[in-house]
Amino acid sequence: MAESTNMRLRLPLLCIILEVILIILFGTLVEYNDDTHAKLWNENRTDSATRNDHENEFYYRYPSFQDVHVMIFVGFGFLMTFLQRYGFSSVGFNFLIAAFSLQWATLMQGFFHGLHHGKIHVGVTSMINADFCTGSVLISFGAVLGKTSPVQLLVMAIFEVTLFAVNEFILLSILGVNDAGGSMTIHTFGAYFGLMVTRVLYRPNLDKSKHRNSSVYHSDLFAMIGTIYLWMFWPSFNSAITNYGDPQHRTAMNTYYSLAACTLATFAFSALVNPEGKLDMVHIQNAALAGGVAVGTAGEMMLTAFGSMIVGFLAGTISVLGYKYLTPVLESKLKIQDTCGIHNLHGMPGVLGAVVGAVTAALASPDVYGHGLQRVFADVETGKWNPQSRGGFQAISLAVTLGMALFGGLITGFILKLPIYGAPPDTHCFEDGLYWEVKTFHAYTPHAPDAVRAPKDSWT
Amino acid sequence: MAESTNMRLRLPLLCIILEVILIILFGTLVEYNDDTHAKLWNENRTDSATRNDHENEFYYRYPSFQDVHVMIFVGFGFLMTFLQRYGFSSVGFNFLIAAFSLQWATLMQGFFHGLHHGKIHVGVTSMINADFCTGSVLISFGAVLGKTSPVQLLVMAIFEVTLFAVNEFILLSILGVNDAGGSMTIHTFGAYFGLMVTRVLYRPNLDKSKHRNSSVYHSDLFAMIGTIYLWMFWPSFNSAITNYGDPQHRTAMNTYYSLAACTLATFAFSALVNPEGKLDMVHIQNAALAGGVAVGTAGEMMLTAFGSMIVGFLAGTISVLGYKYLTPVLESKLKIQDTCGIHNLHGMPGVLGAVVGAVTAALASPDVYGHGLQRVFADVETGKWNPQSRGGFQAISLAVTLGMALFGGLITGFILKLPIYGAPPDTHCFEDGLYWEVKTFHAYTPHAPDAVRAPKDSWT
Amino acid sequence: MAESTNMRLRLPLLCIILEVILIILFGTLVEYNDDTHAKLWNENRTDSATRNDHENEFYYRYPSFQDVHVMIFVGFGFLMTFLQRYGFSSVGFNFLIAAFSLQWATLMQGFFHGLHHGKIHVGVTSMINADFCTGSVLISFGAVLGKTSPVQLLVMAIFEVTLFAVNEFILLSILGVNDAGGSMTIHTFGAYFGLMVTRVLYRPNLDKSKHRNSSVYHSDLFAMIGTIYLWMFWPSFNSAITNYGDPQHRTAMNTYYSLAACTLATFAFSALVNPEGKLDMVHIQNAALAGGVAVGTAGEMMLTAFGSMIVGFLAGTISVLGYKYLTPVLESKLKIQDTCGIHNLHGMPGVLGAVVGAVTAALASPDVYGHGLQRVFADVETGKWNPQSRGGFQAISLAVTLGMALFGGLITGFILKLPIYGAPPDTHCFEDGLYWEVKTFHAYTPHAPDAVRAPKDSWT
Repeated sequence: MAESTNMRLRLPLLCIILEVILIILFGTLVEYNDDTHAKLWNENRTDSATRNDHENEFYYRYPSFQDVHVMIFVGFGFLMTFLQRYGFSSVGFNFLIAAFSLQWATLMQGFFHGLHHGKIHVGVTSMINADFCTGSVLISFGAVLGKTSPVQLLVMAIFEVTLFAVNEFILLSILGVNDAGGSMTIHTFGAYFGLMVTRVLYRPNLDKSKHRNSSVYHSDLFAMIGTIYLWMFWPSFNSAITNYGDPQHRTAMNTYYSLAACTLATFAFSALVNPEGKLDMVHIQNAALAGGVAVGTAGEMMLTAFGSMIVGFLAGTISVLGYKYLTPVLESKLKIQDTCGIHNLHGMPGVLGAVVGAVTAALASPDVYGHGLQRVFADVETGKWNPQSRGGFQAISLAVTLGMALFGGLITGFILKLPIYGAPPDTHCFEDGLYWEVKTFHAYTPHAPDAVRAPKDSWT
Repeated sequence: MAESTNMRLRLPLLCIILEVILIILFGTLVEYNDDTHAKLWNENRTDSATRNDHENEFYYRYPSFQDVHVMIFVGFGFLMTFLQRYGFSSVGFNFLIAAFSLQWATLMQGFFHGLHHGKIHVGVTSMINADFCTGSVLISFGAVLGKTSPVQLLVMAIFEVTLFAVNEFILLSILGVNDAGGSMTIHTFGAYFGLMVTRVLYRPNLDKSKHRNSSVYHSDLFAMIGTIYLWMFWPSFNSAITNYGDPQHRTAMNTYYSLAACTLATFAFSALVNPEGKLDMVHIQNAALAGGVAVGTAGEMMLTAFGSMIVGFLAGTISVLGYKYLTPVLESKLKIQDTCGIHNLHGMPGVLGAVVGAVTAALASPDVYGHGLQRVFADVETGKWNPQSRGGFQAISLAVTLGMALFGGLITGFILKLPIYGAPPDTHCFEDGLYWEVKTFHAYTPHAPDAVRAPKDSWT
Repeated sequence: MAESTNMRLRLPLLCIILEVILIILFGTLVEYNDDTHAKLWNENRTDSATRNDHENEFYYRYPSFQDVHVMIFVGFGFLMTFLQRYGFSSVGFNFLIAAFSLQWATLMQGFFHGLHHGKIHVGVTSMINADFCTGSVLISFGAVLGKTSPVQLLVMAIFEVTLFAVNEFILLSILGVNDAGGSMTIHTFGAYFGLMVTRVLYRPNLDKSKHRNSSVYHSDLFAMIGTIYLWMFWPSFNSAITNYGDPQHRTAMNTYYSLAACTLATFAFSALVNPEGKLDMVHIQNAALAGGVAVGTAGEMMLTAFGSMIVGFLAGTISVLGYKYLTPVLESKLKIQDTCGIHNLHGMPGVLGAVVGAVTAALASPDVYGHGLQRVFADVETGKWNPQSRGGFQAISLAVTLGMALFGGLITGFILKLPIYGAPPDTHCFEDGLYWEVKTFHAYTPHAPDAVRAPKDSWT
């Protein structure tokens, strides 16, 4: 058994091969875009006297990019450190698969978003989009957390990024829908993909590791670092790639109000569903974020603070109820072992966000949006805009996303089931010691009994 | 006793009622402002060819907003995790009351700052102002930390936010004073309000919980996360709502120098007041921040780096001395139990900041400020500007703030004293287990004695 | 022995004297620059109708400054908390010496970068430069971590900042080379300076503290906070002071790709060099950052994503191999005790970055850069530009930097060897209790054996 989880050859080989392929593809396919290329940016500059450096997309997008980047690496990474003995893997594997995914996503998205004379053009907007796609992979990671080897996770990322790019292309380029904050493309897709993967990888004997599948006091505090960063920067996430000006400003504000209302709902229902009225860290860490997910599509529209708060309140409510009542049923009846409860944080709120987006798009009117209409709905300029049909396309997009995610997750799950990746045995899930050098759990204290050594014998 | 702290009905009921009221009021009173409204922003755009998206206030204010947001949720939240068994409550209740306060503050400040045809206009500046007001509530939270139920904290927030908005209106709109970084409106107000509340809620038998009223090694490290984020982003806090251009730039820089000097003073006096010359984490965590508080009023003026450093050095010094010598006296003589020592971090440095602001305003002259004078002192444009009278109004504002804070804290304290909120008993202050599901404190370690279970019997 | 580490007089005296000197020098030498001065900014404004507030350097530089600031205080501070009993000192002394260094650096760099009528002009760019210089001191701190008193560290900072400014002046002003992200000026200089200092301070009996010179589970998670922040914000670091527009945008993107590739190399080689294929937290925490160091010089050039990824991959590889094979040899053969392994994170990758910079500069051509050439290479405008000679000057700069660092570290090391600073004895290195009040390591738990007290007797 011990042999099978040894990563000495598998992980280096996979990492090196992937990175070499990435480097070769970047070398042949990727070029600086107009805003990052020394020649192109300064050529245009000479052509038109009005173009100045402050108009470089860097100054509109880079602060948002950095906030999104923090969500991906600190937010997701630390949110998953809640497990008592899986902190290294949570933040470490999150780091590894995110670093891989953002490179692979640049290629896949660049390919589908349209080549320029056969080349992919990159800049801060492609960096944000790559981080977005990565977010989707990390959502799926939450479902299989503790039950997969790093090699499995990288293989999952290869397939998920690819399918993400296809689904995104269908939604944004073919159906022409709005989804700036990714309620559908990121959250719904990532959640149902991950749920299907974990369904295929179902472990009937996972109970053997149940003593490790819970938090301790300090691990919950580390997880709160992740939660709070996700919560604070979600306004930047949803607004990162909207149009400049009022859409970006409005999206950030709608998200801010949705999250605030969601937080009150989370605390309310967390206390209500507990017999002693005690708050549950799992709810606070996760459900309070559902408000960001649920305005991911409609956030850039004229949803109003009022509408945002209603959506946020609903999202927090269904998320807490999902953790309390639905997750146990999913596991016992549908055999879906969802470690982080991504169905409650990303799945249901993502679907809610898609529905809210469809309704809000269907209710849009030139009376309300004025000349700003075309800055939110791209087909206004082509004269083809029709709000009801826009709403319809939004709804169709949700169905497409669900189909793509479930089908993709199914196939990927079966690929990940091959016994070649060094997955942990049922007795050693949720355990860092399998893939990491773990020396001691407690500090040396001269006058106390010796520090408790992590038991090596049990897995080596 | 156990019954009395059960939050099962009280907390959900209060949260849901408050959020429903907020949603109704937002629905009837709140509208997008010119920079967030699709129609309004793009209308103006057509009127004037020179107006471009980069002039949207989003691009001037949003990075500052995000820094302020981090201070409110990570800064304040983690700063208070220093207590060994109160980390969930510190970061969790901070999260809850901040999420409520920022919504309520939007309404209260919007009401007092001036309605537009009966409506409150919102955008990134109102978001910053709401976060500022929230900061004031969190300062007061620091005084009563560990001794209040979440229901009490929400009730406190309702009153404090309201009075904050009244006081802010008197200072900024009636007296027309400067206080961009809130030495008076935020720090002095929040500190003395909180001190009066904790005075009214005095617990003669708090000693029964004294074994929990201290830090452990890792809780002090979590608290340092809060400290460092507050310290780093204070330049953004003080400059977030100043005028664009030189005032914003100058404020950030003055704050940067004040904090640097303050830090050296803090280390110096922390070692000096200890018999063995050892540094005290309480000082480093708190007093090093006093320099940010103390330039909250004068920061936007021509204080110079030199002046800022003197102010910061003084602030750090009085703050450490306050922790060492004044806090014990306040508790023993005045019956003020100030858990976080907010009098040393926000109270005295806030008063210092108000005085520095008054003096700096009184010394302002067109010689030094040139055409920039009117961009700092609003009444220059109306021709009524007189530096001495400006200084006088600044000093009056300090007195008004102290009066409002003490009176408001007194009333609020008595309201919070009603035995209906489920406050913790004297024996179980500073204890997460009262309001949170706390399973284990230490990780499962196969070869060691079983993980120490949090003792349930003692409060259930 | 106990007497000798008492900081009661030494530390306060040094801090107060230094701060008083700083305040006096700032009072006599420092002035607001054109963008922070109320008069100067608004004068120019009247002269030219086209100058608007959004052109204030604040809006181009401040978000980058804040990211750099986070790297300095959170990044470096928490990265060094990996030691089990040295967390207070890591983040605390980092805080102290950074707060001092940024003030001292403002003066030293201001002096060398050119006075304006005898005055140093300050603004956000000088703040970034001061933070950069501080970073160099913190790199050196990593080499001597756990083996020095705070007084020693401040004395080291005085000398290192001064020499940094001299070296930077020679490179940027005399040799006119490019080094926006500081592969040479910051990383190579800081690393070899620190290595020479620790060589001079060699402790043959450091083994007596070896039980404390390692991590525990949670200290490694705290360190990952530092790692991830450094990793995420490195694109801001390298691009913070490049020219506006395409160079800043391009630098951020090149760094992003270099780091992503570096991370995959780090995971690959970390597993490969371990007999059981287990990942080592030391590698992940440090080597994954080497990619940022290695594009510090060439990042602003037309390195391409392809080139950046190759450089990053190489940097991660040599860094892991350095930790595994070189560090033990440096200690046993060359008597260099490098606590954090700065030679692997900053030394070798810094040299690599300098070489990559020289080659990339030598390969620059107007064909590739177009009109953007002069925005990267300053001497294009003067007509003296010659790529081969540029490459040569870049290489000479590396030699100069190495010489300055080794010589400066040698002298400084001998100064720090004087037995007057209260350095820790060999038996109490890597121990917070020497300079900090440390009460308990574990939380009070009613049903468990009493909390383990930190042993006081052993050093008092």
